[in-house]
Amino acid sequence: MKFAILGTGIVGQTIGSKLISLGHQVKMGGREAVNTTAQEWVAGAGVLASYGTFQDAACFGEIVINATAGGVSLQALQAASTQALAGKVLIDIANPLDFSQGMPPTLSVVNTDSLGEQIQRAYPQTKVVKTLNTLSSKVMVNPGAVGGGEHNLFISGNDAAAKAQVLDVLAQFGWDKARVIDLGDIGTARGTEQLLPIWIRLWGALGTDLFNFRIVRGA
Amino acid sequence: MKFAILGTGIVGQTIGSKLISLGHQVKMGGREAVNTTAQEWVAGAGVLASYGTFQDAACFGEIVINATAGGVSLQALQAASTQALAGKVLIDIANPLDFSQGMPPTLSVVNTDSLGEQIQRAYPQTKVVKTLNTLSSKVMVNPGAVGGGEHNLFISGNDAAAKAQVLDVLAQFGWDKARVIDLGDIGTARGTEQLLPIWIRLWGALGTDLFNFRIVRGA
Repeated sequence: MKFAILGTGIVGQTIGSKLISLGHQVKMGGREAVNTTAQEWVAGAGVLASYGTFQDAACFGEIVINATAGGVSLQALQAASTQALAGKVLIDIANPLDFSQGMPPTLSVVNTDSLGEQIQRAYPQTKVVKTLNTLSSKVMVNPGAVGGGEHNLFISGNDAAAKAQVLDVLAQFGWDKARVIDLGDIGTARGTEQLLPIWIRLWGALGTDLFNFRIVRGA
Repeated sequence: MKFAILGTGIVGQTIGSKLISLGHQVKMGGREAVNTTAQEWVAGAGVLASYGTFQDAACFGEIVINATAGGVSLQALQAASTQALAGKVLIDIANPLDFSQGMPPTLSVVNTDSLGEQIQRAYPQTKVVKTLNTLSSKVMVNPGAVGGGEHNLFISGNDAAAKAQVLDVLAQFGWDKARVIDLGDIGTARGTEQLLPIWIRLWGALGTDLFNFRIVRGA
C-alpha cells in the first residue's frame, strides 16, 4: 500500500521505516523540496522510500499520516492541499504541544477543542483518525517493547470504516486489536491529547519513555 | 486521628465512611450549619462521625480533605478559613469540572494552571497534596475492586513529609505504596486533572467507572 508521511522527524522516520519493513511504499513529505534529513532516511530505507513536498507526499499516499509537530500541522496540511487529502484516511499522531513557555510544554489547543477536531473541521472530506499520539515512537511500532504488549492504545474518529482500516495498520505494527480502545468520535481526541501533560510528567518521574497506560477493569 | 472532610457528596461520604471504619474521627463540613444529607450520613456512620460548617470541620481536622466539587472548592476553603487550614495537610481530591456547557464537562482551570496549584497559592501555609482525583470513589477506598489492585495512583505536592503522611493514609485505604507514583511538585496536578477528559470518555466507552490506569513499563 502507498503511505504518505507528513513530517520528517523521529516519529515520521520510525513509522516510515516500520511501514517499509512491512513491504509498503512510503513517501515522506516536508516543507521544502530538498530536505537533507529526509533524504538520508530515504537513502537508508531503500527502494520503497521516497521524499517530496507535503503535497507530493499527500498526492502519493492512499493513507496519509500526520507526523508533523502539532504547532505546524495545520500549515503542513494546507501545503498538502485539500484536493490531495480529499476522500483519504488521515492518521493524526500529532499533539499540539507548545514549548514557547519552556518545559514542560503546555497545549496550544485544549479543553474545548483539539487538534484532531481542528483538522477534521478544516478537511471535512478527509477521514481523520486520531491514534498513536499517547506513546513514544518506539512503542508505536513495537508494542511488545513495553510489558509484553499488555497495555492500551486509543482511537478516535467519526468514520467507522476508516477506524477499521487504521486498526488493520495498527495490527501490522503488532497491536492486538482487542487492546485498541475506540473512544468514539473525533471529539474524544480531547481526551488523548490531554494525556500528554501527565505523559510528560511520567516520563520525568520514571526516567524513561518506554511506558504506556493500561486500562485495568473491575470484575 | 481527626479528619475534616469538606464536601457532603458521594466522594466525601465514601472517604468518610472508610476513615470511620478504620477508627478515625471524621467531621464532615458543608456550606450550611444544617445539612440533611450530611446529618443522615452521620446518623448512619456512628459516634466517630459528626457534621458542621466548613470552618467547624477545618478547625476539627488534623488532616483536611477537599472533597467539594472543583468549581466551588476555593469558596469552600475560604469559608473554612486560612487560620483553620494553616500548617495542616490538605488532601485535594477535587477536579475543576465545568458542566455549564453540557456533557462531557470541560475543565474550568486547565493547561497553564490547575486547581491544586490555585489552592496551594491561596493557602501557602497549608501543605496541599493532590491525589485520588483520577478514580471513582469506590476505587479510592478499595483499590482491590479493580484488577486485584494492580494499577496506579498519582500524588503531587511540594512537601515531602506531607506526601509521606498522605501515603500512610492511602496505605490504610488498601493502596500498595509502591503503586503510588510521585509525580513531583503541586504543578504536576495539571497532569492528573487533565486525565479527567479521557477518564470520562473511558467511562462511556467501557460502560463502568470501575477501572483505573496502570502504568506499564519497558524492560
